[in-house]
Amino acid sequence: MVERVAFLGLGVMGFPMAGHLLRAGHATTVWNRSPARSDRFAAAHPAAVVAPSPAAAARGAAFVFVCVGRDADVRDVVLGKDGALGGLGSGAVLVDHTTASAELARELEGRARERGAGFLDAPVSGGQSGAEQGTLTVMAGGEPAAFERALPILGCYARRTQRLGPAGSGQLAKMVNQICIAGVLQGLSEGLHFAEAAGLDPLAVVEAISQGAAQSWQMENRHRTMIERSFDHGFAVEWMRKDLGLALGEARRNGAQLPLAALVDQFYAEVEAQGGRRWDTSSLITRLRKT
Amino acid sequence: MVERVAFLGLGVMGFPMAGHLLRAGHATTVWNRSPARSDRFAAAHPAAVVAPSPAAAARGAAFVFVCVGRDADVRDVVLGKDGALGGLGSGAVLVDHTTASAELARELEGRARERGAGFLDAPVSGGQSGAEQGTLTVMAGGEPAAFERALPILGCYARRTQRLGPAGSGQLAKMVNQICIAGVLQGLSEGLHFAEAAGLDPLAVVEAISQGAAQSWQMENRHRTMIERSFDHGFAVEWMRKDLGLALGEARRNGAQLPLAALVDQFYAEVEAQGGRRWDTSSLITRLRKT
Repeated sequence: MVERVAFLGLGVMGFPMAGHLLRAGHATTVWNRSPARSDRFAAAHPAAVVAPSPAAAARGAAFVFVCVGRDADVRDVVLGKDGALGGLGSGAVLVDHTTASAELARELEGRARERGAGFLDAPVSGGQSGAEQGTLTVMAGGEPAAFERALPILGCYARRTQRLGPAGSGQLAKMVNQICIAGVLQGLSEGLHFAEAAGLDPLAVVEAISQGAAQSWQMENRHRTMIERSFDHGFAVEWMRKDLGLALGEARRNGAQLPLAALVDQFYAEVEAQGGRRWDTSSLITRLRKT
Repeated sequence: MVERVAFLGLGVMGFPMAGHLLRAGHATTVWNRSPARSDRFAAAHPAAVVAPSPAAAARGAAFVFVCVGRDADVRDVVLGKDGALGGLGSGAVLVDHTTASAELARELEGRARERGAGFLDAPVSGGQSGAEQGTLTVMAGGEPAAFERALPILGCYARRTQRLGPAGSGQLAKMVNQICIAGVLQGLSEGLHFAEAAGLDPLAVVEAISQGAAQSWQMENRHRTMIERSFDHGFAVEWMRKDLGLALGEARRNGAQLPLAALVDQFYAEVEAQGGRRWDTSSLITRLRKT
């Protein structure tokens, strides 16, 4: 079914995601904070309509997607002056793809409900390449009815979409994902650093151990660039710090103990201090002296 | 080619490994510290010869395999009274499958060389099931000539055998493996614990995230038993502590920094203190309160 949709935020994730909606035939209105990016999008997708504000984009749309940077950005785009909420129609569904706090998700669901609209928090994983190839994973929270309605359209850019519970649950699941990655990457960093310090060929060691109990996606996909200390790709440290900050903040409320995630967050602060804000998260290894 | 071989140490790993040598037709003499275990082996493998001492087992063997617990056990079995070294013939190859220190490997190579014999340190990964199924990974250190000679016979129980460098390199590679696992398991423990504390269904979260950047062998193979807090299987905490101790000791010498491995070693000390010496390593999650 062809839908009228709005997509707010045309960053490295949102730009290709909105493109998939257009390619699937949906009548798509876009908005981006910096107009240059919207213009570039319109040039690439002549069928796209560029709106002057989030509210204007949202007006008349059955689904309003948001994919921006942080909680404060979501608040601006949805709840601020000319925000999407003002244009959100009764019966529409607001879908926030931003990785943000679970608290914000609960608040947004309440505000959407006041307008007779549904809401899903729906952070994604899979990175820029997943967005471009339409193979993202969507972790969703919200009412089952809103989820069922959104499911077909999310399939335009997601290979896997799962509802984890009420509003906020998608954000909480994304936090679990990032906590697991923090452990994998710190272990892998120490392992490769130890191999170098011990005089081993780290590539040969990875070849020997990469099929067994130490195997991980990160080992398979990042060991080579970690050994080369090449980090101009992937998921940036500043975003990982944002995500770990969300997890650590949530843990303060729910009482979870996260000693490793807290430590890795501090290690990433050191990577940032040495100029690595935009480096891939596997740059965690740079904290450890290269021998 | 059928060889005369000796296998010293019929524990959970050595018992099935020696069995594979017999099934491949090699003339196999075995020895074990506790004779009951040798008797059980002989009952299961009528072609096996049980020797009264490591020296007697080694006499006339082209390959002498050792698979015991710790450095001190290897010293007893190889260098002690009636140890394997006394029976080691010129031209034989001593292969130590024990996970032990790199220093010991270098010492054993020197002692074997004095007798005109070769040496390989050859710790394995793959666990009891890998030993039983003959699908172990062998990480080897030593002279290329010794490695080439041993390679076909190691194939009786290994799916993958790799030489990483001179004597000690196999042990160092195994340490890298264990360091990586420590990170994966602590991250996974905190992730599942956080999911529980946040009120999510941890099984559903794993289903959502297990195909992406957080994926690991441990996540795939241990998440269910971690959620169930069932640890009567797998690789025991006391052995992981031994291995982390080897890595931390080696890091003192080579200057590597292992903040996470050091922390996880302490966490395992807490697991041991609550009675978990024999639990699987994934019991790291028990340090974190179950909500």
